[in-house]
Amino acid sequence: MKFDVVKKSSNTSARLGRLETCHNSFSTPIFMPVGTQATVKTMTPDELEEIGAKIILGNTYHLYLRPGHELIREAGGLHKFMNWNGSILTDSGGFQVFSLGELREIKEEGVTFRSHIDGSLHFIGPETSMEIQNALGSDIMMAFDECIPYPATYEYVLRSVERTTRWAERCKKAHKNTETQTLFGIVQGGVYKELRKKSAQDITSLDFEGYAIGGLSVGEPKKMMYEMLDFTVPLLPDERPRYLMGVGTPQDLFEGVIRGIDMFDCVLPTRIARHGTVFTKKGKLVVRNAAYARDFGPLDPTCDCYVCRNFSRAYIRHLISANEILGLRLTTYHNLYFLINLMQKIQKAIEGDYLLELKDEFFADFGIPNIM
Amino acid sequence: MKFDVVKKSSNTSARLGRLETCHNSFSTPIFMPVGTQATVKTMTPDELEEIGAKIILGNTYHLYLRPGHELIREAGGLHKFMNWNGSILTDSGGFQVFSLGELREIKEEGVTFRSHIDGSLHFIGPETSMEIQNALGSDIMMAFDECIPYPATYEYVLRSVERTTRWAERCKKAHKNTETQTLFGIVQGGVYKELRKKSAQDITSLDFEGYAIGGLSVGEPKKMMYEMLDFTVPLLPDERPRYLMGVGTPQDLFEGVIRGIDMFDCVLPTRIARHGTVFTKKGKLVVRNAAYARDFGPLDPTCDCYVCRNFSRAYIRHLISANEILGLRLTTYHNLYFLINLMQKIQKAIEGDYLLELKDEFFADFGIPNIM
Ligand SMILES: [Zn+2]
Ligand SMILES: [Zn+2]
Repeated sequence: MKFDVVKKSSNTSARLGRLETCHNSFSTPIFMPVGTQATVKTMTPDELEEIGAKIILGNTYHLYLRPGHELIREAGGLHKFMNWNGSILTDSGGFQVFSLGELREIKEEGVTFRSHIDGSLHFIGPETSMEIQNALGSDIMMAFDECIPYPATYEYVLRSVERTTRWAERCKKAHKNTETQTLFGIVQGGVYKELRKKSAQDITSLDFEGYAIGGLSVGEPKKMMYEMLDFTVPLLPDERPRYLMGVGTPQDLFEGVIRGIDMFDCVLPTRIARHGTVFTKKGKLVVRNAAYARDFGPLDPTCDCYVCRNFSRAYIRHLISANEILGLRLTTYHNLYFLINLMQKIQKAIEGDYLLELKDEFFADFGIPNIM
Repeated sequence: MKFDVVKKSSNTSARLGRLETCHNSFSTPIFMPVGTQATVKTMTPDELEEIGAKIILGNTYHLYLRPGHELIREAGGLHKFMNWNGSILTDSGGFQVFSLGELREIKEEGVTFRSHIDGSLHFIGPETSMEIQNALGSDIMMAFDECIPYPATYEYVLRSVERTTRWAERCKKAHKNTETQTLFGIVQGGVYKELRKKSAQDITSLDFEGYAIGGLSVGEPKKMMYEMLDFTVPLLPDERPRYLMGVGTPQDLFEGVIRGIDMFDCVLPTRIARHGTVFTKKGKLVVRNAAYARDFGPLDPTCDCYVCRNFSRAYIRHLISANEILGLRLTTYHNLYFLINLMQKIQKAIEGDYLLELKDEFFADFGIPNIM
């Protein structure tokens, strides 16, 4: 992997970057659609390409359980299995083990948990996580970490941060395909600045090719998340990509970019799409609502995506009311396009050094109070 | 609408035809994918075009209940509402009223039934059916008929056939957009040759622009269906298109074409697709089965569709196991492509006058006993 900072914003910490993997190269800051089970829900790889997606996320926990990483290895890796020729980032499995797996036991070796699918007992530790991600063949792998819930005591977070660092060291040792797969470290520390600092120092001292900030957007107030970013990002090396995990509302994308984040992922745009909510320039719109039954205009009149060029709110609302799969396809497609397109606008704004102006305009239109 | 018989098979009743509507023109015999609720399940109109679909079916009963024909009229008609520029045939609503509607009462005026969605009370008769179909703006409309269940007594079928003829007359009178929308009559008569003959005589005497054969493939033995076709098709005028309603297995397509049928529709290919079953040259394949978990070949090695060019059985099986929408999309796409492609081969075989040879070869490969 190669990463270059191409241009820096003059009045924010934002930067325009260029990231190159074995599969493609793309500009940052970037939004990565989430492809949990070897598919970005409802979308073909061709459609992902069409909307300008360059890198997608795969979930180690889900793919380990089903269809199994050995099967994907046999298929020639995740890219080949799902026929996606762009880049793939896989998470470590940690987040899902802690949030979805039942009856978990956390030990120094790793975590024992029960599958959310069939209740079977499994173990994932740093070495297993690396083995799985090596089998998947993702371009960017994540070190195995504990994602601490919010709230958590200082003592708990301290012990967890220390263990996450030891796990990160073991990940570095266990990672086999260093030629083709890049490993990112994850900074944890909850909402304690001291522990964020400790985690950042410990993890960066291990010299990863990129760094993620984990454990945010897990229930803490937005203001607190932004404060943690303000504090943590400067502790990370300038020349390495920075990834804010699990964050992806339009507001958070702007606030993250402004604080120096290069990569984002979030299930939100696809999840709300499946519930009939779409992004528009004027804010979120619940197209499922009866108010749009006879609205023959597009989801977003300012959007030039395939969906907005071809279908009306009335039609999409009908599809969703009638439980038709095409409805979910169209809202998902539009929402992903909206965010990817937004990131392209943000990239241009950094290049032209008018990011704050773009933010003000976007927030005003979208209806976000601009107070940060 | 314009219909021409272009070429006749020398040793069967098959014919190659050309049908022209206000929206497009296409060769027959043809298979029409079913778009019940203003969408062919899981497919975009662009994908339908990509697989070579020229005409699709819309369901009057479903569209009347949801979103309502007045809303579709406001949208500019069904073509515009769903953004489909090919042809559309709408059924009369009769079949669904009789099969889905509860607490029905059949009178001379029409049928009173309860919605399968919310139990509300509705009435559809010949005039209502025409009004709805006129609002939908389909290229081909069907006369309102009673689809008789199998088995039914001779006396019941006789009375029903007579009423269906009176309804057909009323449909002709009530049909408003004769310039842009064509009306087909429907021959009923159950499995009684005498009543098929009576129905064919009565309906053809009303001089419709095309004729459908209804009330077959409703549970009677296949042999009986083919016998009814052998008997009924010759009673229809040679120069008008003939449509066999609700029939669409590969076997029935061949047997229908050979007996002189020009148009078919069936929910089967899309329905079995959603349950993980696909057509292949070698017969049906339940790709959902564990046997295909590590099968990295395409659904059908002889198929050149988008799905078979890009995805493996193992991947599609995984998607279906994981309840991923993309799985349903891929199996549906392939199955529709398979049937549409089969009809194109059948058209070529009629043109080259080798239809029976194609049938023998297809049946042998597919594993259909060739005994008819
Ligand atoms: Zn759009
Ligand atoms: Zn295929």
